[in-house]
Amino acid sequence: MEPGTARIAVDLLGGDDAPAVVVDGALRAMRADPDLHLLLVGPAEAADEVIGALDPAQRARVTVRPVRSAVGMADHPVAARADSTVRSAVTAVRDGIADAAVSAGATGATVTAAALALGRWPHVRRPALVATLPALAGPVVLLDVGGSLEPGPATLARHALLGAAYAAVAHAVAEPRVGLLSVGTEAGKGDRLRRAADHALAAVPLPCGARYVGFVEGYDLASGTRADVVVTDGFTGNVLLKAIEGAYAMAGGPPASGGAPRAAALLGVAGTVVVCHGAARGEDVASGIALAAHLWRRGATDTVAALLGGAPEAGLSSGDHAERTTDTGVSL
Amino acid sequence: MEPGTARIAVDLLGGDDAPAVVVDGALRAMRADPDLHLLLVGPAEAADEVIGALDPAQRARVTVRPVRSAVGMADHPVAARADSTVRSAVTAVRDGIADAAVSAGATGATVTAAALALGRWPHVRRPALVATLPALAGPVVLLDVGGSLEPGPATLARHALLGAAYAAVAHAVAEPRVGLLSVGTEAGKGDRLRRAADHALAAVPLPCGARYVGFVEGYDLASGTRADVVVTDGFTGNVLLKAIEGAYAMAGGPPASGGAPRAAALLGVAGTVVVCHGAARGEDVASGIALAAHLWRRGATDTVAALLGGAPEAGLSSGDHAERTTDTGVSL
Repeated sequence: MEPGTARIAVDLLGGDDAPAVVVDGALRAMRADPDLHLLLVGPAEAADEVIGALDPAQRARVTVRPVRSAVGMADHPVAARADSTVRSAVTAVRDGIADAAVSAGATGATVTAAALALGRWPHVRRPALVATLPALAGPVVLLDVGGSLEPGPATLARHALLGAAYAAVAHAVAEPRVGLLSVGTEAGKGDRLRRAADHALAAVPLPCGARYVGFVEGYDLASGTRADVVVTDGFTGNVLLKAIEGAYAMAGGPPASGGAPRAAALLGVAGTVVVCHGAARGEDVASGIALAAHLWRRGATDTVAALLGGAPEAGLSSGDHAERTTDTGVSL
Repeated sequence: MEPGTARIAVDLLGGDDAPAVVVDGALRAMRADPDLHLLLVGPAEAADEVIGALDPAQRARVTVRPVRSAVGMADHPVAARADSTVRSAVTAVRDGIADAAVSAGATGATVTAAALALGRWPHVRRPALVATLPALAGPVVLLDVGGSLEPGPATLARHALLGAAYAAVAHAVAEPRVGLLSVGTEAGKGDRLRRAADHALAAVPLPCGARYVGFVEGYDLASGTRADVVVTDGFTGNVLLKAIEGAYAMAGGPPASGGAPRAAALLGVAGTVVVCHGAARGEDVASGIALAAHLWRRGATDTVAALLGGAPEAGLSSGDHAERTTDTGVSL
């Protein structure tokens, strides 16, 4: 764990089993990281549960940000109230009250709230959700896992840059190998999107000494032997991540290197935001908070944004005309 | 194993490591199934390897169909010669010399050869590759895994019928539950294709008492708790199957119920055809031969075709105008 204080805004009402699992996750995170400060966003009674379970020294590291509308909506479903808590959490980041925000609420609502409050990076049409699989050969960065369900080739090329920078900055991968997920490794494999994106990725200069290695396959996600960064559309990435999680559960548990991640970084907005699995358990929320603190301490979001801002636009001039910008409905 | 002779045409040159792995697979299959007869299609020297390793009684169950062009192309790459062997194998099925054909060659070449030699079923625009995952709760039929990379909603609805009939006939699943793979389970989740297909699947009457259960997620593939049949496009299905295989390999082996299948049935052509993984090992080829024999003994192909032929066309009248029929390049 890197040194340095990290102040994380936590959405108490995000997630299928909120606020109980968020309370549990916040407690786990507080106990694991002595430099962690939490801004608990939501109903005071849930925040009180966290505070009541901490010892006095730890309590000094917790601040509460009651959300008026969430309190006033006590008879509304948690999901409806969570929209206002996630907005409040990302607003705290915008206002410099917190360094990063974490939510296990609906991904679409979090992406929208973050883009509105923090603004998007230049040249990023849709923020990407980036998950890291702890493969045996090292971390494998998979993107997108649900931010953009129907990207065009230019967005996939942009995500290749983004993933390469993220692998180098967040995970210290030297000269990341970037692959494009398809149904075979030879050139020409795949659907129209993949064939077009193959050309776009081959043409785009990548940061951090990264290089494009061409098509990779489903096997390569869990092994990490052929690529450090795997680029795909958000539909395929989301379904894949859950299939791998399901396979590990069926096989009696994840490999020693670690299981499928249940938290993903939201990249493309001007601030550090982590999205947890909607069905997150306490340990998943805690891992999301730890990821947010890690990214903040590394200055990952700003560094990745700077690397992208300086990257040439070659090969990306043509827009994705067929691309939809109104994708909705994903749940991580 | 069901009783009854099954005569299987085996493409000796299909697969990355052909003919060695096919020879190995043929021997394993012959030893495991006393009612199996093989028609070995390809170079005589490879067939002789199989015959030489069998005892005299077993040899009576093997016939050789030398492929002239394959022999004459001895200095060509195996992949180029395999095109003529797979054509010869499916032609043997058409001519009644074999009951089913098995190849581990390029999926596209096998699908094309089978469609040309055997003809397609009415109302089936693109044949589907159907894989069965041995989940804990029972078999999960996944389609398509590479036959049609860019289907439209009508093809997905047609594949729902096909998968339901296949689950009932090939795996004796009573009243199969059919799910559509997406990024969340609530209505409205997913990309345009999934949202349109959700309506199409809800409207189409399914055979064998099957019912549409709506969206399912990646987890449901390995568990089988929510659906017996999972419908998706061939790109996603292919990538998923390989990701699950990779996850099992990483987790130290598949679950007790069984691993990811490395053979798939080709449905939509008028004959029994099984496609093995391009990187098939001997046991994978053997499992493909066993699957072909199982399908033949159950009369699965004809029964599924009859169930589809009699199924109403409600909800399928609008064609998939955006759909491509020239998908290429998949490798199973």
